[in-house]
Amino acid sequence: MIERLRWKTDSLDILDQRLLPQKIYYLNAKNPAQTAKAIKDMATRGAPLIGCVAAYGYALALKASRPKTAEQAKQILSSAAKTLKDSRPTAVALAYAVDRLHALALGFLSTQKGPALKPETLDALSRLIDAEAGKIHDEDVDANERLSEYGSRLLKRGATVMTICNAGALATAGRGTAVGVISRAHEKGLIRQVYSLETRPYLQGARLTMFELLRGKIPSTLLTDNMAAHIMKTCKIDAVIAGADRIASNGDTANKIGTYMLAVLARYHKVPFYIAAPIPTIDMKLPDGGGIPIEERGQDEVCVLAGRRIAPCGARARHPAFDVTPAGLITAIITENGVIKPVNRRNVRRVVEKEA
Amino acid sequence: MIERLRWKTDSLDILDQRLLPQKIYYLNAKNPAQTAKAIKDMATRGAPLIGCVAAYGYALALKASRPKTAEQAKQILSSAAKTLKDSRPTAVALAYAVDRLHALALGFLSTQKGPALKPETLDALSRLIDAEAGKIHDEDVDANERLSEYGSRLLKRGATVMTICNAGALATAGRGTAVGVISRAHEKGLIRQVYSLETRPYLQGARLTMFELLRGKIPSTLLTDNMAAHIMKTCKIDAVIAGADRIASNGDTANKIGTYMLAVLARYHKVPFYIAAPIPTIDMKLPDGGGIPIEERGQDEVCVLAGRRIAPCGARARHPAFDVTPAGLITAIITENGVIKPVNRRNVRRVVEKEA
Repeated sequence: MIERLRWKTDSLDILDQRLLPQKIYYLNAKNPAQTAKAIKDMATRGAPLIGCVAAYGYALALKASRPKTAEQAKQILSSAAKTLKDSRPTAVALAYAVDRLHALALGFLSTQKGPALKPETLDALSRLIDAEAGKIHDEDVDANERLSEYGSRLLKRGATVMTICNAGALATAGRGTAVGVISRAHEKGLIRQVYSLETRPYLQGARLTMFELLRGKIPSTLLTDNMAAHIMKTCKIDAVIAGADRIASNGDTANKIGTYMLAVLARYHKVPFYIAAPIPTIDMKLPDGGGIPIEERGQDEVCVLAGRRIAPCGARARHPAFDVTPAGLITAIITENGVIKPVNRRNVRRVVEKEA
Repeated sequence: MIERLRWKTDSLDILDQRLLPQKIYYLNAKNPAQTAKAIKDMATRGAPLIGCVAAYGYALALKASRPKTAEQAKQILSSAAKTLKDSRPTAVALAYAVDRLHALALGFLSTQKGPALKPETLDALSRLIDAEAGKIHDEDVDANERLSEYGSRLLKRGATVMTICNAGALATAGRGTAVGVISRAHEKGLIRQVYSLETRPYLQGARLTMFELLRGKIPSTLLTDNMAAHIMKTCKIDAVIAGADRIASNGDTANKIGTYMLAVLARYHKVPFYIAAPIPTIDMKLPDGGGIPIEERGQDEVCVLAGRRIAPCGARARHPAFDVTPAGLITAIITENGVIKPVNRRNVRRVVEKEA
């Protein structure tokens, strides 16, 4: 798969996924603000991937400006953390990565004596942050592999699967989550057909998932979002698999708008509905999905398509970017620590606390 | 509302709805083949409207060529009927209109003595067909008014309604069906908000329904199709109202792809789900929805949007243009003869056979 990011120590190349599949182009971010902008504008996207991007964005803070005191360093890093975390509210992997690096940096700084920060101390801190950002990246690659294997065991030979948005390699540092499960199952010869919902308004399913499935030579068919119910009714669908942006401690799951629709349709048609996501997607602080912030994006992203206005001037639109699927509609959550099934508070805790 | 068609006796101006809302442009059809092409290519659309367009298209047959014998006339008219009926398979109003005119014409010809057809006899036949086409047109206007009034009585003050595709004035000769109900309810001060699903791939909801709602100053919000479930869950929706392309004698209803999705979602969220359609939409010859032919259109209509390819080259797509909603998911069918509720074979027959 094409690289989603290229870490260059003093800057970060970010694949501009808005231009896929037509064009492969990298933005270059030199500081946390530029990184946050790439996330906010959806040049880069996918919950696990924006966690990695934000980690490297945080690491850029001490390259972009070289603080002279520990206090200055704290301010710069706190500001970087806030800018990055504010870029998109729903995916918790972003906050997880930034908080993890920030705690590490503050811990390091708290051990320093005196207000001055020597250049060699600053360099040591910077190397520490870089290494931890790299670790977050590597952990995602590894988590993808393991959860994809677990997920593939839920499918039988000849499986027809439906997915939404892009929870693939382009959404992660590794193989992907929902599409990772599909590609692992395909390696085992289990996949007959994959239906990819185009996923309006950004068309990640049409542009990105179809791109990955075609490259992987996985039999695939594109659908508009409003075809999902008809296809479930008229073709045999063995599983719906989606990714996640944030999972509450009871299993309620926020993911791309339309995921909840699929869960309701899957329940009606008696199709198993799976969520595939790495452990950092699970927000144990939230008792349930009611506390997940749902990002409301601009109306123009709905009303204007490929530079052309599709709705009349003056038309109002809603643009919730995510929805929440209650745990009760989810057959199982597939993680790198194993499969959560049935989805309830106790099983979520058990898998989160399990040693990988 | 802007004119959807202009009958000029020897040709027909057809509003090219593919260009709306940006451009108001009329195609001119001089014969049945040109009329059929405008229907097939979706320059004109909407089940009741294509019934009217096809009726005038049929009337053009005897203008485009002047048969010398009754046999020639029969051949010309039979060929026109076939061409028009083949243009789109799902909407029964088209077949209804053509069959009605064709039966009238054949009846007229059967009373003629001898093979030759005098010019004045031909003119008489032509006037007869023209008048009947106009009658079909007028009946649709009238049916729209009456069913809209019946439908508006199902809504209470402050109603929030969701609709899909365009079952409005642009889909009919009159006020519209689903949007007719909404506009009539709006005149009575009942409507708080209308959610219009954009309806991929042709975006009739974004382009046409939003256009009508804005012109009618009806409070409206555009949604992508995958938002329907989230909006039903998070906003109070009082009713879903959709049009129909064909209704079987047990109430099973074919309509624009995504209608069945809405019916399943409405059932899950305990929202009443209504179909609004004139009586000629009901195909009493079909025992149930299993016999309704579902048109499968080209893949490019899904993969290419506003002239731009949105899926990678080589991507396969499905494009069923309609789906079938089983009667059991429909709260009521609103017709000009009254409301069918509950939706079952006996009630469908009772309303169809009722004197209007």
